[in-house]
Amino acid sequence: MGETLLPAIGVEILIPACAVVAIAFSLVQWHLVSRVKLSPHGLDSAATDGGAGKNGHAEYLIEEEEGLTDHNVVLKCADIQSAIAEGATSFLFTEYKYVGIFMVAFAVLTFLFLGSVEGFSTSSQTCTYDPTKLCKPALATAIFSTISFLLGAFTSVASGFLGMKIATYANARTTLEARKGVGKAFITAFRSGAVMGFLLAANGLLVLYIAINLFKLYYGDDWEGLFESITGYGLGGSSMALFGRVGGGIYTKAADVGADLVGKVERNIPEDDPRNPAVIADNVGDNVGDIAGMGSDLFGSYAESSCAALVVASISSFGINHDFTAMLYPLIVSSVGILVCLITTLFATDFFEIKDVKEIEPALKRQLIISTMLMTVGVALVSWIALPPSFTIFNFGSQKVVKNWQLSLCVAVGLWAGLIIGFVTEYYTSNAYSPVQDVADSCRTGAATNVIFGLALGYKSVIIPIFAIAVCIYVSFSFAAMYGIAMAALGMLSTIATGLAIDAYGPISDNAGGIAEMAGMNHRIRERTDALDAAGNTTAAIGKGFAIGSAALVSLALFGAFVSRAGISTVDVLSPKVIIGLLVGAMLPYWFSAMTMKSVGSAALKMVEEVRRQFNSIPGLMEGTAKPDYATCVKISTDASIKEMIPPGALVMLTPLIVGILFGVETLSGVLAGSLVSGVQIAISASNTGGAWDNAKKYIEAGASEHARTLGPKGSDPHKAAVIGDTIGDPLKDTSGPSLNILIKLMAVESLVFAPFFATHGGLLFKI
Amino acid sequence: MGETLLPAIGVEILIPACAVVAIAFSLVQWHLVSRVKLSPHGLDSAATDGGAGKNGHAEYLIEEEEGLTDHNVVLKCADIQSAIAEGATSFLFTEYKYVGIFMVAFAVLTFLFLGSVEGFSTSSQTCTYDPTKLCKPALATAIFSTISFLLGAFTSVASGFLGMKIATYANARTTLEARKGVGKAFITAFRSGAVMGFLLAANGLLVLYIAINLFKLYYGDDWEGLFESITGYGLGGSSMALFGRVGGGIYTKAADVGADLVGKVERNIPEDDPRNPAVIADNVGDNVGDIAGMGSDLFGSYAESSCAALVVASISSFGINHDFTAMLYPLIVSSVGILVCLITTLFATDFFEIKDVKEIEPALKRQLIISTMLMTVGVALVSWIALPPSFTIFNFGSQKVVKNWQLSLCVAVGLWAGLIIGFVTEYYTSNAYSPVQDVADSCRTGAATNVIFGLALGYKSVIIPIFAIAVCIYVSFSFAAMYGIAMAALGMLSTIATGLAIDAYGPISDNAGGIAEMAGMNHRIRERTDALDAAGNTTAAIGKGFAIGSAALVSLALFGAFVSRAGISTVDVLSPKVIIGLLVGAMLPYWFSAMTMKSVGSAALKMVEEVRRQFNSIPGLMEGTAKPDYATCVKISTDASIKEMIPPGALVMLTPLIVGILFGVETLSGVLAGSLVSGVQIAISASNTGGAWDNAKKYIEAGASEHARTLGPKGSDPHKAAVIGDTIGDPLKDTSGPSLNILIKLMAVESLVFAPFFATHGGLLFKI
Repeated sequence: MGETLLPAIGVEILIPACAVVAIAFSLVQWHLVSRVKLSPHGLDSAATDGGAGKNGHAEYLIEEEEGLTDHNVVLKCADIQSAIAEGATSFLFTEYKYVGIFMVAFAVLTFLFLGSVEGFSTSSQTCTYDPTKLCKPALATAIFSTISFLLGAFTSVASGFLGMKIATYANARTTLEARKGVGKAFITAFRSGAVMGFLLAANGLLVLYIAINLFKLYYGDDWEGLFESITGYGLGGSSMALFGRVGGGIYTKAADVGADLVGKVERNIPEDDPRNPAVIADNVGDNVGDIAGMGSDLFGSYAESSCAALVVASISSFGINHDFTAMLYPLIVSSVGILVCLITTLFATDFFEIKDVKEIEPALKRQLIISTMLMTVGVALVSWIALPPSFTIFNFGSQKVVKNWQLSLCVAVGLWAGLIIGFVTEYYTSNAYSPVQDVADSCRTGAATNVIFGLALGYKSVIIPIFAIAVCIYVSFSFAAMYGIAMAALGMLSTIATGLAIDAYGPISDNAGGIAEMAGMNHRIRERTDALDAAGNTTAAIGKGFAIGSAALVSLALFGAFVSRAGISTVDVLSPKVIIGLLVGAMLPYWFSAMTMKSVGSAALKMVEEVRRQFNSIPGLMEGTAKPDYATCVKISTDASIKEMIPPGALVMLTPLIVGILFGVETLSGVLAGSLVSGVQIAISASNTGGAWDNAKKYIEAGASEHARTLGPKGSDPHKAAVIGDTIGDPLKDTSGPSLNILIKLMAVESLVFAPFFATHGGLLFKI
Repeated sequence: MGETLLPAIGVEILIPACAVVAIAFSLVQWHLVSRVKLSPHGLDSAATDGGAGKNGHAEYLIEEEEGLTDHNVVLKCADIQSAIAEGATSFLFTEYKYVGIFMVAFAVLTFLFLGSVEGFSTSSQTCTYDPTKLCKPALATAIFSTISFLLGAFTSVASGFLGMKIATYANARTTLEARKGVGKAFITAFRSGAVMGFLLAANGLLVLYIAINLFKLYYGDDWEGLFESITGYGLGGSSMALFGRVGGGIYTKAADVGADLVGKVERNIPEDDPRNPAVIADNVGDNVGDIAGMGSDLFGSYAESSCAALVVASISSFGINHDFTAMLYPLIVSSVGILVCLITTLFATDFFEIKDVKEIEPALKRQLIISTMLMTVGVALVSWIALPPSFTIFNFGSQKVVKNWQLSLCVAVGLWAGLIIGFVTEYYTSNAYSPVQDVADSCRTGAATNVIFGLALGYKSVIIPIFAIAVCIYVSFSFAAMYGIAMAALGMLSTIATGLAIDAYGPISDNAGGIAEMAGMNHRIRERTDALDAAGNTTAAIGKGFAIGSAALVSLALFGAFVSRAGISTVDVLSPKVIIGLLVGAMLPYWFSAMTMKSVGSAALKMVEEVRRQFNSIPGLMEGTAKPDYATCVKISTDASIKEMIPPGALVMLTPLIVGILFGVETLSGVLAGSLVSGVQIAISASNTGGAWDNAKKYIEAGASEHARTLGPKGSDPHKAAVIGDTIGDPLKDTSGPSLNILIKLMAVESLVFAPFFATHGGLLFKI
């Protein structure tokens, strides 16, 4: 089997060091963003700083500077920013309050269920996988699972909240920088995204690392028990993410759809016009949904794939031989990933300069390519020093011999599958290519053909990502069974810091555009922020592609771990218990989507009524002489999302419990597999359809080609048809679609955590 | 084990007798329809006949008779009818010509592949399931499979073609009868539907029965080989149905969408206005898509479930003991089903009378309930006389003991699951209930919310049908393994004659309305046909629900038979070969839908251009003084559908071959299971979403309630939004949705037919 080159003490230094470096790096980025002053008297110095700061951006100012001396605009921006930040903070606190109650209740349930496995006995028991040894009691697993569940939930909250804070800190600053040119605005938005990306990656890693070391003080050599209880971390992170994604998704899209339906369609006023009462709610929504929700989501994926890998490793030769370095291989990969992303970020902020709007999208794409290539080298290196040349991996009852280069390939195949998914997503959602242009063209004959073509595009965009995931699964499973799949997922997520940076960049630019419009700034500023935003739409779709691809791998790995833990060796489709599980599981994403889409629809209808009421009852609103009542719209979105996130959340959280308790682990396996294979498809197609509609609309609005100009301008019939498509796509791409990857992951990790309970007490109905 | 009460000679009399009775019954119905004369001089006698005919309908004429003496109208109707009939016949001949070439090629392929299993050896071989016996050579199976394949294809063609003939014979007659009242029109349309239903059910049964008896002359006691080659019948039927559904679906929706987009949306002329150049193509489409396509589809389901049941029975105690009565139990159930449907039909045509438009939908629903209740008794009776009290069923390698009452329950659970699916579908697609009314209400805020609510409705409508199918699978599998599931499917299809009658009634009424409009008849006539058509929309959705539910069961049964035949005993989700199959299989319905939706969209765009061209270039067209060029529009639909049906058809036909040959039977099992669990959901949601949009539009147009009137009238903004939804729903409900059930069935039956080949020569890639 052999030794690892890297000693255990090296691991104990490497992981926290990488995390600390990442945190320091993100604080530096934050500091750089903070140098853009949001008060009039600081303005001149900011301009000077920007012009001749240490990063040498003096040559940036190739575009005309706009309104740099208008102090009034700065004040307005600061005002709007604080309104958005306030709304977002207040919503998140309300959300966390309600979800907090749920989390505590679920923590109690977790403790009771897991504690009851051995009747709350405090005496040691024989281990599950190695019956010759004694392991810590089930009660300990119950306690530590509960603790790690709460830790995961808390880290998820922190990730989302910090992301929202930096985003609402950066949006107005991006707007102000846009006066100096598109390059400066890009840097500000991207740096802010990087703050979120690195903070999240570092926190996720650090908390997990500390938890493992603390739990080890109690568990000692019982790594089976130790890593079984660590899986609570993934469950906590994902549960929080579910509510964050669903609640935030309903919030943002209710406001967005409501604002657009009255403002753009009925009143013919521009997007983000300050006269629209729902405009603040819309901008708040970007921060709580697309930033906080997405941050929690990706943190959840990261936590879950780490936990899945660890729990499988603990019953493989790493765990049996107590090889700490190899055991923490998943965390080492993530640590190296952070360093790789750090270097990659410099390519966007320091090594290259954006001088023209056309360079934005390539610059963001370059981030993906650079990080993937560097990481490929990193993975090879890490696998060489942190893994023994040969080892065994638990494979449903037997041990499979694996070489270190094979495991390295598993990580790499995940990494590259992520890149392929990213590029395919870009092809189907960017308006630089024919699919979106065809959708835009179909707007000639109205909204109906636009929707038909858009749906067809989304369906078609599923094909290559599914093949990529399938190849990834086949290769990594063949080499290293379920551990290989977990590591492929971690490989896809190893560049999460960069992924999040370019993902968060989108909503920040979106907000920046909103602030420019509301502050009544020059249309050239708005054009610059629009260009940033259009690239952001594509990167957001790419981010969703990553999230879904990794979710598919993660949940498969968790599924494998669950099956092992539940003590079943085959999940036979030919058994009626499994096939009905498959069928019902494949239905769950539809049920879930029905709930979330209807919620957005109903909340949007309420919003529309309120906005119409204000336009009709507040004199002078359309003329711009009276201010709308933003607060009521914020309240409508808040109330709707808090109320409406409960049923879909309950569906996801309760299904594994009900199925496991009533029908047992076999049917539950079917449900997990069914929801996985069906959910992935709907999630990908919904995200891409929505992204394509959004960019088809932007294509017509921008009018950058001969073809686009024949469809435009804004207000033409094809443009109106495009707006309808965009509105339909909103809940698809930002509410139901991205929530589905949490659905498949969460059900899997929850099943894994409760596997000991189901194996002991489950399947009541079939026992009668 | 025991004997059956019914001797073999009884079976030999019962089955053909029932088929002949059904054919006679449908000829009588046809004769009754033909008494409505389509020539002016026959008019008076027809009116007299109708008024005091032998059925005693004199009291029917509670509504005012309209224009009975206007000979001109009759001539116009006859003209339009012959144009529609001509278009439909010409399209079907073109379609059959192209598909015929494909069928012959595929027949050759079938022969070569199956013949090569034993290297075209003519010597007998040991049987697959009972190695102590000698069976006929693989070459014989190849020959007879090819023959039954062609027989199935031919019967499918005949079913579709005859249906189209009666439908295009009845449509104008329904219009003319509508002048005398809604009751007379209903009877005419329903009788014509019954002609199709009974002809199809009887043909399907009779051809299968004769084929078995003829094949038996060669096979003798080798029932394993006999029924293995009979499965080609299902494959032939379903292959033909695939092209019929897809080709017909593209034809009808290209014409429908194209006609609506220009006529209703741009030119503000009513639906089916004779000035619209696409109007004939639209009406032809109803007959080739909704009639011929659907007929082939349901015939395919019927043939496949019979074959699945027979092939499993042949290796169970029925086949081993050569118990001919029990062996033909599936055909006996279908025979009794025909008798039950015959009685049920009389309730609609003779025992009750329709006096008001409100009675139409309940009358059709009553058909479902009566047939289900009568059939429940029939099943119990048949199971008692045609089955031994106890027998064994092959269950993946072992034999499972089953009692006759248990098998009877399997059939009954399928029958009732069908009824539940029917009622749920009705609830979600009829505008008498809140779901459709909510969708209509969401049109207040425009097309976007309409689409969001409609999609959510479709997703939600999946829940109960999936649970019904799951319960059905669990019960029937527990009682009688895969044979139970095949019999549950046949149970659901046992009332196929009634199902088809009420299903075909819809497009006939739709055509009748179109003819009324084109002939310039009084608006009251159009109101009557509209009422018939609205009920037809709901029953069409119910019919699709049945088709999908039975397809799910059928393909599961075929899947089980395939797995047995391919010699694998478990399909383990935890094997990478299976899980990648599952994932890719679940993706296929999306790929397929992307193709068909895009085809409809592109063909509709071409149609729009042609219609616009005619409106712009033919002087006097809008004023009604010049006639449009209908033939060009018919040609556009024909060309588009013939060309566009190839790629989706190839996808479905080639996937099992490619996967089986390259990846082997395990991956193919995964693909079949994946496409089954994912396809069912999309098919149900697509059909119901489309049906709901259609009826939401009709709800606003009819303005039958206070609420509906606040949304209307025709031409209001909410109505325009509803029209957009209706147009989007067209390809969903009539092209991609219903084709998906053929996709899942066909891949399963094809895998079963080629199972011996895959088991011998398959999985090349993994052998390297």
